[in-house]
Amino acid sequence: MRTPPSPRTRVRRLPDRGAYDRATVDAILDEAFVCHVGFVHDGQPYVIPTLHARLGDTLYLHGSPASRMLRTLAEGVPVCVTVTLLDGLVLARSVYHTSANYRSVVVLGVARLVDDEDEKRRALEALAEHLVPGRWADARQPNAKELKGTGVLALPLDEASAKMRTGPPGDDEEDLALDVWAGVIPLRAAAGTPVAEPRLRVGLEPPGYVTDFERVRAERR
Amino acid sequence: MRTPPSPRTRVRRLPDRGAYDRATVDAILDEAFVCHVGFVHDGQPYVIPTLHARLGDTLYLHGSPASRMLRTLAEGVPVCVTVTLLDGLVLARSVYHTSANYRSVVVLGVARLVDDEDEKRRALEALAEHLVPGRWADARQPNAKELKGTGVLALPLDEASAKMRTGPPGDDEEDLALDVWAGVIPLRAAAGTPVAEPRLRVGLEPPGYVTDFERVRAERR
Repeated sequence: MRTPPSPRTRVRRLPDRGAYDRATVDAILDEAFVCHVGFVHDGQPYVIPTLHARLGDTLYLHGSPASRMLRTLAEGVPVCVTVTLLDGLVLARSVYHTSANYRSVVVLGVARLVDDEDEKRRALEALAEHLVPGRWADARQPNAKELKGTGVLALPLDEASAKMRTGPPGDDEEDLALDVWAGVIPLRAAAGTPVAEPRLRVGLEPPGYVTDFERVRAERR
Repeated sequence: MRTPPSPRTRVRRLPDRGAYDRATVDAILDEAFVCHVGFVHDGQPYVIPTLHARLGDTLYLHGSPASRMLRTLAEGVPVCVTVTLLDGLVLARSVYHTSANYRSVVVLGVARLVDDEDEKRRALEALAEHLVPGRWADARQPNAKELKGTGVLALPLDEASAKMRTGPPGDDEEDLALDVWAGVIPLRAAAGTPVAEPRLRVGLEPPGYVTDFERVRAERR
């Protein structure tokens, strides 16, 4: 889709790299483990990494109700949530055209503190399942005290845009004959062998969703 | 080091996770490929992913002089640059203690547009070498026109703090007997097999710094 949801989410630089369809936006949000939340406090912008999860048209964040991020966002201030997947290092024959292959999403809006207990529980389920699918049903789910002690923020995906770069480097024609290797070093988030918690009961094996854990790259849906 | 460089860089939530010594900050900045730059434009915070490089006490960013990020930051507005390395998914027996192992750095300050051509060249060298060490000497270096066409910003590392979480999940004592696996799924940025640019001259093999490319995890120095 080539139509941005608002003028301020329009990709200005290299507009060919922009995308505004929700399928593209959702796939990037769903693949990334971490987002970066931007907000202003006392005139100073802050960018804080945190976990997120998408449920339909809503992006959920959570944290301690005492944290600066939660307290500030709960006031209904403008927020920007950015998610970036780094797919490769792009080496052109010229340093000038050095680049990176990436897929990113920027969401602008105002977050709402979730009061409803059912919505809060669904958001926490989404956050757990977003990180490691299968975990919610297996682990001990939050009790009333833990639900109360967790702040959840909801940000609508009304104003979101994606930007991406794919493919080989874009060298100038006159550099093609140079005796310099050019191409892409692909990157991905690789999971290693699970490390059991030291006090784990002997004989308690990791479940399949842990041993087989892999973040599959979402293709543009 | 336990002393933050300013009150606003002090880690408030879970202060044990904070670190303020430059060796820790530098190691995280140097290992991460990408940073997230936060700034305010028309009252709206924006968070933009971009490449960065550290040179001594300065963090360098670059981009098109026409980009909103560069134009806004060149005005001398407050900026926040955040770098995050995700080291693992932390699965506690209770969903409530689900977490992530990470190392992050937050740099606050005001960036300066680099005018001096020598400094600009050194910054571009640092940016290329930060991404793939060995690249600057091998590739075609920027000419005068390209230098002019690249905007470089310098942000002093005077006001930087690191925050990290390491180790196993922190379950409550009463949950330790639960029949739920707990532990950490380690994550790392893994490089794949280099993909040559399609028009690469036949027989031009990738150099060792490409075939052996690996981002080594910096231990706390």
